[in-house]
Amino acid sequence: MVVATNNFPSSNGRTIPATIISPNTIIELEKGDPVVFEKYWKKRSEECSIVIRGWELMSYLGDAKNSVCWYMLPEVERGIRRLHHVVGNAVTNDRYIVVGTGATQLFQAAVFALSPSHPSQPINVLAAAPFYSEYQDEVSILRSGLYQWGGDAASYEKNEPYIEVITSPNNPDGIVREPVVKSEAKGKLVHDLAYYWPHYTPITHQADHDLMLFTFSKCTGHAGSRFGWALVKDIEVAKKMTRYVQMSSIGVSKESQTRVAKIIGVVCDGYENFGSMESELFFEYSKRLLRERWEKLWAVIDESKLFSVAKYPKAFCNFTNESSEPFPGFIWLKCEEGIEDCESYLLEKLKIRGRGGKRFGVDSNYARLSLMGTDDDFNEFLKRVSNA
Amino acid sequence: MVVATNNFPSSNGRTIPATIISPNTIIELEKGDPVVFEKYWKKRSEECSIVIRGWELMSYLGDAKNSVCWYMLPEVERGIRRLHHVVGNAVTNDRYIVVGTGATQLFQAAVFALSPSHPSQPINVLAAAPFYSEYQDEVSILRSGLYQWGGDAASYEKNEPYIEVITSPNNPDGIVREPVVKSEAKGKLVHDLAYYWPHYTPITHQADHDLMLFTFSKCTGHAGSRFGWALVKDIEVAKKMTRYVQMSSIGVSKESQTRVAKIIGVVCDGYENFGSMESELFFEYSKRLLRERWEKLWAVIDESKLFSVAKYPKAFCNFTNESSEPFPGFIWLKCEEGIEDCESYLLEKLKIRGRGGKRFGVDSNYARLSLMGTDDDFNEFLKRVSNA
Repeated sequence: MVVATNNFPSSNGRTIPATIISPNTIIELEKGDPVVFEKYWKKRSEECSIVIRGWELMSYLGDAKNSVCWYMLPEVERGIRRLHHVVGNAVTNDRYIVVGTGATQLFQAAVFALSPSHPSQPINVLAAAPFYSEYQDEVSILRSGLYQWGGDAASYEKNEPYIEVITSPNNPDGIVREPVVKSEAKGKLVHDLAYYWPHYTPITHQADHDLMLFTFSKCTGHAGSRFGWALVKDIEVAKKMTRYVQMSSIGVSKESQTRVAKIIGVVCDGYENFGSMESELFFEYSKRLLRERWEKLWAVIDESKLFSVAKYPKAFCNFTNESSEPFPGFIWLKCEEGIEDCESYLLEKLKIRGRGGKRFGVDSNYARLSLMGTDDDFNEFLKRVSNA
Repeated sequence: MVVATNNFPSSNGRTIPATIISPNTIIELEKGDPVVFEKYWKKRSEECSIVIRGWELMSYLGDAKNSVCWYMLPEVERGIRRLHHVVGNAVTNDRYIVVGTGATQLFQAAVFALSPSHPSQPINVLAAAPFYSEYQDEVSILRSGLYQWGGDAASYEKNEPYIEVITSPNNPDGIVREPVVKSEAKGKLVHDLAYYWPHYTPITHQADHDLMLFTFSKCTGHAGSRFGWALVKDIEVAKKMTRYVQMSSIGVSKESQTRVAKIIGVVCDGYENFGSMESELFFEYSKRLLRERWEKLWAVIDESKLFSVAKYPKAFCNFTNESSEPFPGFIWLKCEEGIEDCESYLLEKLKIRGRGGKRFGVDSNYARLSLMGTDDDFNEFLKRVSNA
């Protein structure tokens, strides 16, 4: 292994750009911090600026006329409906919108809202493995008497009511998913659609489920804003979710809400103004970024005997009007050649920090790595995998 | 009852200003929305403005060097320490700072962090009545197996470990408090000091407890920002609180944090710049606002046969260098003359919405009313009480 001070030719002749990262430095690809999109927003920096004056946004209230989500600013609600209309990824007609401090808070609000209020025993919350690594802890942390973590949805065999979370495209593996529980009991569904946006995956249909979760973090990459939203069919569920957010944090930062409204507005304006250059539109630009990374990765993985990544089928995207593979935000890496603990191997041999398969309910020969880090981290990652 | 289109002389000769509120309109004094401070921030509007550009604050991370509260911006930590130093209301040396989405989230983080991890039964969470009306629901909402609501701290007699919340000055009644539990068992304490600021109460000492909660909502009145902080002595407790906030919302809005840092900076600059006019300093200005309202209220209550409010003792404030009464953010109203349900009486007879005593663990002849609403609402409230 050498310090890359010049471009580094990989074995298949492609050139991996130089990085300034020392080979002894650990590359942090464990979390999914979406810093890759920062360069897009630097181009749009002034256009997306918000100014908040000293006396503005002081009240707990967002919209006294909203009988469900009273802390939501009206311009946020309008922005969310407009964005889904522009992208065509989800039905918003006849849906209530509940906003939260990230989809993380809303996931818990949803589980609370769908749980029976006075159960004889906690209802099981399920997700098909590999499932998002945080669901289990988020469900279990307070040892609720209302709900409990029930594990892998695919192996659930109890004839008892349940809540199934369908993450689609899935985190960690990017697969488009449907419910999998086979039970005679009645289940309630939460669709976590954090990655159902055109830069990550073809938009094949307008999602039309009872309870759908989205997050600003993955949509535009503004993870620091801690802002998510739910589209909810049943008003009582929406009200119960709002009640949870009220008890948990008395609403959602108005500063974040103002910024969300502004940035969503700029994204939508781009698509609705006839003269916009395609290369400057958010989802096209971001898809190109992710596609470039995936193409570099596939080239390296194709040559690797140690690592593999599943290939994704193409699908036609109604939004971009082209057929393409998905370009997930995470690499779901499988270690081959008898490497049993992929996370440890990556860390010890390659100084790459990922998150091992066991956190996702599967074997430790898998690990999840962020594809959305800095260029330097990503290129250094490619170099180390190439060299391994 | 008449519509006040002119100034309204009360029975003791003081003049209550006119309002444009119709006598049939319900006055909402149930929540403690601190809009009274808005006029101060209008004067400071530009000075306190923040500008956030499109690409800024995108990361989940706030300060990679902070081994406890990784999502907190460094300027927020500096601002909080500086503010307590300027005001002298709490010790920050050798304390860890954990920030949350309002003190509401941090209260729950504190209860989680102080609860045993694997209890044979949930630990009791106590507060002396009248206690803040939301504690009980916040503790009980998920039926945690770790902790449960144990009711009035003053009547706790079990010889079992407990968590006591000391709200000082107290919400709803403004009283300065100490722990009250008499038990041979070991208790852990949470000090909720949301109102321990010089506009509400004399600053008699630097608070120096193990776990202290503060909120931006009540300090400067920016309730919409959903921002609070904890000063924590034990690093393990601080880490466990951070873990809770991570599981609950993956941190705190960076936009809110930026604004908090800015506004705290402006407040502190005022006190540290020798030439500042006292009338323009935040706590002096705000104390004057609250004092004026309380003086109007006392004048009206003194004449009332239906309502009473406890008188508060004076104390010397180390911050303002004067002796004064407290000026709480809520009116803790007692209904006299056989009115048993104060909340219903206020609503039905005077069209004033308050929050009844039962929500605070005491009799229904008490009700809590916000003193921090708009001038119009407050003056109309005085008029209706005067006329009752």
